[in-house]
Amino acid sequence: MTMNAHLPRQPCRRITLLFICTLLAIGETQAAPLPSWNETAAKSAIFEFVEKTTRKSSADYVPERERIAVFDNDGTLWPEQPIYFQFAFAIDRVRTLAAMHPDWKTTQPFEAAIENDLDSLASTGEHGLAEILAVAHAGMTTEEFGSIVGAWLTTAKHPKLARRYTELTYQPMRELLDYLRENHFKTFIVSGGGVEFMRAFAEQIYGIPPEQVIGSSGVTTYRDEPPALIKESKVEFIDDGPGKPSGIHRFIGRRPIFAFGNSDGDLQMLQWTAAGSGPRFVALLHHTDAEREFAYDRMSQVGRLDKALDEARSRDWIIVDMKEDWSTVFSKDDTSSPDR
Amino acid sequence: MTMNAHLPRQPCRRITLLFICTLLAIGETQAAPLPSWNETAAKSAIFEFVEKTTRKSSADYVPERERIAVFDNDGTLWPEQPIYFQFAFAIDRVRTLAAMHPDWKTTQPFEAAIENDLDSLASTGEHGLAEILAVAHAGMTTEEFGSIVGAWLTTAKHPKLARRYTELTYQPMRELLDYLRENHFKTFIVSGGGVEFMRAFAEQIYGIPPEQVIGSSGVTTYRDEPPALIKESKVEFIDDGPGKPSGIHRFIGRRPIFAFGNSDGDLQMLQWTAAGSGPRFVALLHHTDAEREFAYDRMSQVGRLDKALDEARSRDWIIVDMKEDWSTVFSKDDTSSPDR
Repeated sequence: MTMNAHLPRQPCRRITLLFICTLLAIGETQAAPLPSWNETAAKSAIFEFVEKTTRKSSADYVPERERIAVFDNDGTLWPEQPIYFQFAFAIDRVRTLAAMHPDWKTTQPFEAAIENDLDSLASTGEHGLAEILAVAHAGMTTEEFGSIVGAWLTTAKHPKLARRYTELTYQPMRELLDYLRENHFKTFIVSGGGVEFMRAFAEQIYGIPPEQVIGSSGVTTYRDEPPALIKESKVEFIDDGPGKPSGIHRFIGRRPIFAFGNSDGDLQMLQWTAAGSGPRFVALLHHTDAEREFAYDRMSQVGRLDKALDEARSRDWIIVDMKEDWSTVFSKDDTSSPDR
Repeated sequence: MTMNAHLPRQPCRRITLLFICTLLAIGETQAAPLPSWNETAAKSAIFEFVEKTTRKSSADYVPERERIAVFDNDGTLWPEQPIYFQFAFAIDRVRTLAAMHPDWKTTQPFEAAIENDLDSLASTGEHGLAEILAVAHAGMTTEEFGSIVGAWLTTAKHPKLARRYTELTYQPMRELLDYLRENHFKTFIVSGGGVEFMRAFAEQIYGIPPEQVIGSSGVTTYRDEPPALIKESKVEFIDDGPGKPSGIHRFIGRRPIFAFGNSDGDLQMLQWTAAGSGPRFVALLHHTDAEREFAYDRMSQVGRLDKALDEARSRDWIIVDMKEDWSTVFSKDDTSSPDR
């Protein structure tokens, strides 16, 4: 009130003040994007693509509704070594439930999970792994599962990196998600991981709402008293390899113009994105940084990058070299600003 | 330039002008919502729900990201009599293809489709209907299918209502979609209809983008040279009855707070929506208007409304009576403003 009463007598001062405040505000919101990316060709390629697809006078202009950007999750937005984080969750879940199942101590694959013996676990084969996943992911309502994952994320830590999993997102990729959204791209996760597992954290750490997360899924059955969805152990859809373009088509119904992956499981998603008409951005993250994260590609059991690396090179897709292209690897916090 | 040059000397006049223009602009954009709804209890219930869930000081306030609204399509956003429009498409498609298949003239179910003999077609049973649908929906790329549907929509007309199908959307429902979106609800279609069929028109006529359309789907197979998705005749998912909550969970990953249907196929979607915590809006459209549209419920072969009508009455869900509650039925145009 006092301020306002003074203002009519000092219009010039007020205008000057407003002008300065506005400049300051502009300065703050227009900090250079992608600060954790080094000044290399990868960063330039991102800027160039976004500029040419969003400037109205550009020959490559793309209307907002068609600015669909898809990202793999494991190994692209956060790590996937030494094992997929969802698998670490399943093993921990078996341990939690073991108290109610004394026979598990002497029965494979549970014995191996309880003892965290990954080699023995692997030797139980697909059937063994499926049993571990079923115990952790089925026989409860969808809401109960979300709560279980949420609780696990608040306590579990990565065995090598010694931080909570949600603190292990790649800062440069989060900056890229933000930058695309500021330019009216709609960002989606398209991952082989379980869709419900990812939805438990995607909104908080990536700003990607549940309806923009596409993943593998199990069958759910409707129960009417009281109404709820029960998670079954039967697999419904595997969102990996050639399943990724099918999943994108099923969920989004438009071919993306921007796709980012890191392994052979992303190859068909990248091919399908690249083959659309008009401007396309197709990129692979190459894990080259044994010191700050992990270094692996053609020989890795988890997140193998072999055929897709050859194809990226032959087709001139962007290959992001973690060691060379990123000044920072991990985010300092675990919350993100939301997509629209 | 001339205007600007004058302004500093006439600040009062400029401000008055701005003030009047602003008032006019407000008057224009704030026309009363839902003009095609009569002043009945149904309209009041919509206003009351939106007001209490969007006013920040309300005990029932719902954050924007949780304002998920789901709508059935056939019989809820446009008609479904005398047969689902997608089935009319499939029959027309068989006729178009018949020139290349002379044997169809004497082979069921194609013979019945070519002669538009719906009774004979029905007598071929599920197997016959599936054959008609497979011919119309499989064996092409997803892009080719979209083009075929798009072309059909520009020429085909409804047998009784004598307008193009896209001109048969319900004006009151389009106003409701707009009103919800203005209040930062995210609107989705959740329909037993084919997801790709609906995506061919949903953005244009309802303002609902492809990624917010959930429906039944067939398997697609990835082909890599050149990259494309081929539509197979195998059914992947039926988004009807108990499949609707499963479909919502799979695609959206959040329980809606607003659901609108019109038949027993919507019952589980309405139950599941109603059973969530916090404020809920659950409604059925009752087709009571034989003069302007169709009148049917418990005995209808298409869009039967029986159990859901009983449950709506016993649970005090909103029952919209087309004849009593709507002043206008059909939209005058076939384009809509988009969701975000």
